[in-house]
Amino acid sequence: MKARVHVTLKTGVLDPQGEAVRHSLGALGFEGVGEVRIGKVIELEVAETDRAAAEARVREMCEKLLANTVIENYAVEIA
Amino acid sequence: MKARVHVTLKTGVLDPQGEAVRHSLGALGFEGVGEVRIGKVIELEVAETDRAAAEARVREMCEKLLANTVIENYAVEIA
Repeated sequence: MKARVHVTLKTGVLDPQGEAVRHSLGALGFEGVGEVRIGKVIELEVAETDRAAAEARVREMCEKLLANTVIENYAVEIA
Repeated sequence: MKARVHVTLKTGVLDPQGEAVRHSLGALGFEGVGEVRIGKVIELEVAETDRAAAEARVREMCEKLLANTVIENYAVEIA
């Protein structure tokens, strides 16, 4: 089963990578760009064939590895 | 206007980051994980108020900075 995990920084957490991109866009002449926030999308194949089991497993993966739950939120999509 | 850019590796391009995550998941006891692919989601505010103009501008940003078009695909969403 295919799963997709969206990992984004929690609101209020500074995004240095986003800031760097914003500055670079300005340097390239793209004026008026507001806040830039960068997240991850992780696509993976899991062996489970049952949707609920697959979702629970992927959530466990998020808690243990895929997301830093102190500063990041994650959302799991089972395709 | 808020825009969201999805940047993913083109099919066939090796994803070392994804491979590293797959190995780490295995080491944490998550067996049976197939291919892992990692992409980026970039959320940004643009000054344009017209949708078409905003999309064209963000596409230009992708071509120049946000995506490496040799190995990456990008998709633009205007919220």
